[in-house]
Amino acid sequence: MSDDPAITARAVRLAQRRLGSAGGEVRGRVLSRLAALLRDESDGLLAANRRDLQEARESRLAPPLLGRLELSRAKLEILVEGVETLAAATDPVGRVLRRTELDEGLELRQVTSPIGVLLIIFESRPDAAIQIGSLAIRSGNGVLLKGGSEARHSNRALVDCMRRAVAGEGLPPAVISGVDGRQAAQALLEHDELIDLVIPRGSGELVRAIQSATRIPVLGHAEGICHLYLDAAADPDMATRLAVDGKCDYPAACNAVETLLVHRDFLPLLPRVAAALREAGVELRADARARESCPGAVAAGERDGATEYGDLILAVRTVDSLDEAVDHIHRFGSAHTDAIVSADAEARRRFLDEVDSASVFANASPRFADGFRYGLGAEVGISTSRIHARGPVGVEGLLTTRWLLEGSGQSAGDYGPGKRAFIHRPLSL
Amino acid sequence: MSDDPAITARAVRLAQRRLGSAGGEVRGRVLSRLAALLRDESDGLLAANRRDLQEARESRLAPPLLGRLELSRAKLEILVEGVETLAAATDPVGRVLRRTELDEGLELRQVTSPIGVLLIIFESRPDAAIQIGSLAIRSGNGVLLKGGSEARHSNRALVDCMRRAVAGEGLPPAVISGVDGRQAAQALLEHDELIDLVIPRGSGELVRAIQSATRIPVLGHAEGICHLYLDAAADPDMATRLAVDGKCDYPAACNAVETLLVHRDFLPLLPRVAAALREAGVELRADARARESCPGAVAAGERDGATEYGDLILAVRTVDSLDEAVDHIHRFGSAHTDAIVSADAEARRRFLDEVDSASVFANASPRFADGFRYGLGAEVGISTSRIHARGPVGVEGLLTTRWLLEGSGQSAGDYGPGKRAFIHRPLSL
Repeated sequence: MSDDPAITARAVRLAQRRLGSAGGEVRGRVLSRLAALLRDESDGLLAANRRDLQEARESRLAPPLLGRLELSRAKLEILVEGVETLAAATDPVGRVLRRTELDEGLELRQVTSPIGVLLIIFESRPDAAIQIGSLAIRSGNGVLLKGGSEARHSNRALVDCMRRAVAGEGLPPAVISGVDGRQAAQALLEHDELIDLVIPRGSGELVRAIQSATRIPVLGHAEGICHLYLDAAADPDMATRLAVDGKCDYPAACNAVETLLVHRDFLPLLPRVAAALREAGVELRADARARESCPGAVAAGERDGATEYGDLILAVRTVDSLDEAVDHIHRFGSAHTDAIVSADAEARRRFLDEVDSASVFANASPRFADGFRYGLGAEVGISTSRIHARGPVGVEGLLTTRWLLEGSGQSAGDYGPGKRAFIHRPLSL
Repeated sequence: MSDDPAITARAVRLAQRRLGSAGGEVRGRVLSRLAALLRDESDGLLAANRRDLQEARESRLAPPLLGRLELSRAKLEILVEGVETLAAATDPVGRVLRRTELDEGLELRQVTSPIGVLLIIFESRPDAAIQIGSLAIRSGNGVLLKGGSEARHSNRALVDCMRRAVAGEGLPPAVISGVDGRQAAQALLEHDELIDLVIPRGSGELVRAIQSATRIPVLGHAEGICHLYLDAAADPDMATRLAVDGKCDYPAACNAVETLLVHRDFLPLLPRVAAALREAGVELRADARARESCPGAVAAGERDGATEYGDLILAVRTVDSLDEAVDHIHRFGSAHTDAIVSADAEARRRFLDEVDSASVFANASPRFADGFRYGLGAEVGISTSRIHARGPVGVEGLLTTRWLLEGSGQSAGDYGPGKRAFIHRPLSL
């Protein structure tokens, strides 16, 4: 890329217009080329990744980060299969969402379109470069990719493959451009005239820091303080299963349960749930009423019930009613994913209606909140923002719409009181 | 409202949750009550408005602003009819957008939901309070309304009617709350934990100032630098009609034409178009080649062709090709609304495919870019942002979605390689 990141961004913008209007078949062929290239170049890609790993070990990167940084042959094969699936997928661009006959010979269509230029900021995992890059190509967007410095050899090699795949179809490779260094990324955040959306994939702090630093819209997630509410009418087996799955399946995930809300009428059955959780190694931090039913639980402190532990720790709170459970979720939750366990259909209906979170579940583990599990295909991320895209976001999150109007010479001044009237007839898609 | 705007915002948040889960029939009844109240209280409302007008005249407000400030009996009646239409409209909340069977007994739905709490900042026109307020009620949102100080008596009386209509259905009136003064509005822009979306209705400067001052997403419009492109194959009658309508129907509108792009092969026919525009009182600012075909045109200066005049002034530029026209639009336009006039179907198709604007038209006046003309019903505004809602925005712009999952006790850990597989069967809506 150029020394001036704004010059790079401008080149991405110009290149994106070519990719965006190239047609879905061409974008599909770019992705097929990319899959083939990733296979052909796998030795070189893995070598680049080993350089990163070597340097990371020398600079004593923490073991979990080393794990994320590593690109094995198996991981690469999964990535390639993902790219192939996207290559074969229906073109998401130009889909007609609405058609209206405004008047005879005057037809309006609302169609899906690429957003434009995306700035993707991600940490450690080099697979993210391919996942997001291929989603961007599929949806006709241009991308500025800023990866972690610890993955720079891997990212450079992967971006190079993507650019060659784009160029192979006669399109400008600038549509996918790497951004080197934090300073360059900071400078780009100033350019809301060149960049349409920032997608940070990383910690909640990273997301908040970026939101504060830019006028560009940000699609990111804050934290996940998810609740499992055991209703008065909860089946104790199901309650136990979902509490253990929700907390222990992957405690570091944003959709893991952090607080167990327990209806007071369920307290007599709580010891079973608590025993299973303790057996799975979970530390319980319970309020006074719940502690009587949770032998071995420690007393909850001030921050328990409002904390994303990301670990085998679970707050347990007693509530007197479903209303109190819903209020607690609204007050202390992060509107990410919340679930009720209940055999009472009316309680489930109220919970699903009233809880204002991105994902609201009844009798299912909060851990299902995930783009792959929802069947969205490749996942852009999980959004805790409320506008544009909310919850697990698939390729639709990288699309906007345009309104296309085809007429036969109509003037707007010909319509109005005492003049022509609009028909506004909805047409089938 | 309370002296601390954050306390008011918190009250709106709590009240919104009640309105949002109250059901569409209740929200419809609130709107019917509002329509009746506005009729019953019309004398008082018009008296409040006369006080504003009186004070505005004393402080020598400019006549166009006085016009916008005035609430006549006729204007009020149109407002009431709009509220009645909304009261009878289908509930936009809870509409199922997607249904998927993830597995037997595990069904996912994506449903429309209110966004939450909106901060509406508008100038002069008190009718905006009712238009936006009633759209917010219809879509289950809470609203903080900050009107212009010059309309404060009118706005107070109108907000009072809305609150009484809400209370009449047993819901907390705090769901609609006024915000007094610029300082209070500024303070609210800090509270991204209390407010989900800011909608400024006013000048581009107002919108930009707000975007710079807040982390809350902003739904607003920047400027409208709209183009009409007369292709080589443009019909001269149609070109003349659409140029005059596009420029003169309402020159101050954001969808009025600011630059006429003329294919060099159309230049011999340009004098007819130019004569009609001159006759309509339009000042033409043309480049050297176009001036030969525009008798009386002045020479275009540096900013002509990149300016929103909002007046009877039109830049005229010659281009050598459709490609050059599209490039010009991307470079100097504001991606608001751009139109081609051409009898050549292939040229129209390319223009519609390639121009990356919110509204792209063929053989129709750019002045059609408007929520009412598009048949969207009441209009929230015209958005030049690219995410969430783009172009004319109806009530959909005030909605987000939630994902609802109903299971029968499934754990996420039961799925995966060598375990259960997802079905991901799309279900009919």
